[in-house]
Amino acid sequence: MTTGKKGRFITVEGGEGAGKSTVIARLYEELLSRGMDVMLTREPGGINIAEQIREIILNPAHTEMDERTEALLYAAARRQHLAEKVIPALAEGKLVLCDRFIDSSLAYQGHARGLGIDAVYEINRFAVGDCMPELTLFFDVLPATGLARIDAARGREVNRLDLEGIRFHERVREGYQLAMALDPERFVVIDAEQPMEQVYQDALAALTARL
Amino acid sequence: MTTGKKGRFITVEGGEGAGKSTVIARLYEELLSRGMDVMLTREPGGINIAEQIREIILNPAHTEMDERTEALLYAAARRQHLAEKVIPALAEGKLVLCDRFIDSSLAYQGHARGLGIDAVYEINRFAVGDCMPELTLFFDVLPATGLARIDAARGREVNRLDLEGIRFHERVREGYQLAMALDPERFVVIDAEQPMEQVYQDALAALTARL
Repeated sequence: MTTGKKGRFITVEGGEGAGKSTVIARLYEELLSRGMDVMLTREPGGINIAEQIREIILNPAHTEMDERTEALLYAAARRQHLAEKVIPALAEGKLVLCDRFIDSSLAYQGHARGLGIDAVYEINRFAVGDCMPELTLFFDVLPATGLARIDAARGREVNRLDLEGIRFHERVREGYQLAMALDPERFVVIDAEQPMEQVYQDALAALTARL
Repeated sequence: MTTGKKGRFITVEGGEGAGKSTVIARLYEELLSRGMDVMLTREPGGINIAEQIREIILNPAHTEMDERTEALLYAAARRQHLAEKVIPALAEGKLVLCDRFIDSSLAYQGHARGLGIDAVYEINRFAVGDCMPELTLFFDVLPATGLARIDAARGREVNRLDLEGIRFHERVREGYQLAMALDPERFVVIDAEQPMEQVYQDALAALTARL
C-alpha cells in the first residue's frame, strides 16, 4: 500500500493529567499562526465508521465485551480514521497532530490490562500499515501528579479509589516505557512534572527542532 | 488465557457452491440423532456485539470502508462470538460445529483481496487465542462447478459477470490452499466435485473418524 505521504505525522501520548490535550491545542494554534498547514485530530475524529465502532466500544450496556474484541475494535477505528482523515491530509502535505495513537493501545490494552504489548502491537501494525508517526511526544508524568492535577481541576482531594487508580496508571506508565523501547527513535520524552507553561515550551521546542 | 476447553471444536470451510452449509446441517442432525451434545453455529450467531459489528461491515452505505478496517472488524466479531458462544459451549463439553471461521478470512481477505495471508493470520490468531479448531473440513470444489451449482439452484445460466466471479473464486481456492499449508494437520479435504450425497458421506466419515 502506498499512502502518497508528503506531510508530517506527529502524535502525542501520555497518561491522565499529563496535560497533553491542553498542550497539543496550543501547539496547533502556534503552528497555525506561523502559517503552517496543520490538522489537529483525535480518534474517531468525526469519521462515520470509526464513530460507529467507538459507540459499540463505549456503550455501557456492553458489559459482555471481551477485551480482545475491544482491542480489535480500537484498531479498526484507528485504521478507518487513518484511511479517511490522516492519510488524505498527509497526501495534501499537511502536518497532522494526533492526540493519542498506537502507543495508547500498547500502554492501556497491551500492558495495563494485560493483553500483552507484542500481541496488541501486531494488530495495530496491521491497522497502521506504513503510516507510523515520525515523531511521538510522550508527556511523562507520575500517576500521583497527574491524578492530583485532575483532582485540582475538579476541586477535590485524592481518595481511596484514586489510590487504586494510581496502581492502574503506574501500569500505564510502565506500558508507555515498554512501547518506547520497541521504537526508541520515534519518541521525545517531555517532562510533564513541570508547570504547564514549561511543559508547553519543551513540547514546542521538541516539535520545532524536528520540523 | 485458559478456556477450560473440554468439548471439541470443528469448523467447515469452502468456496461458494461447495455445499458446506447443506452438509453441515445434515451432520448436525446426524450427530444429534446419535445422542451427542452438539451445537451448530455460524458467526455472528445471534451474539449482540458481533451482530452490531456485522451491521457496520455489511451496511451498503459504507462504501468508504477500508479493507483493513473490514478485516479487523471480522476478527473482532469472530472474537466476541467465540467468547460468548463457542468457548462456553466447549466448557460444557459440547461438540461445536462452526460454518466458516479463521480460514475464510485467510482465503477471502488475506489472499483473494490481497491483504496478505500472514497479516490476516496474525490479527486472527489474536482474535482466536488458544481456541483454534482441532479439525477443519475443507470442501474443495472448482469455482466453475460451485458457481454452476448455485446457478442451477437459481434456474439460470452462467454469464459474463459469473466468469469474472470465477477468477475471484479461483483466488479464494488458492487462498484456502495457502491456509491449509500454514497448518496442514488440522485439515481434511472433502472432494466437493462429487454428487452432494457422496460429499455428505465423505464428510460424515471424516468427522466420525476423528471423534
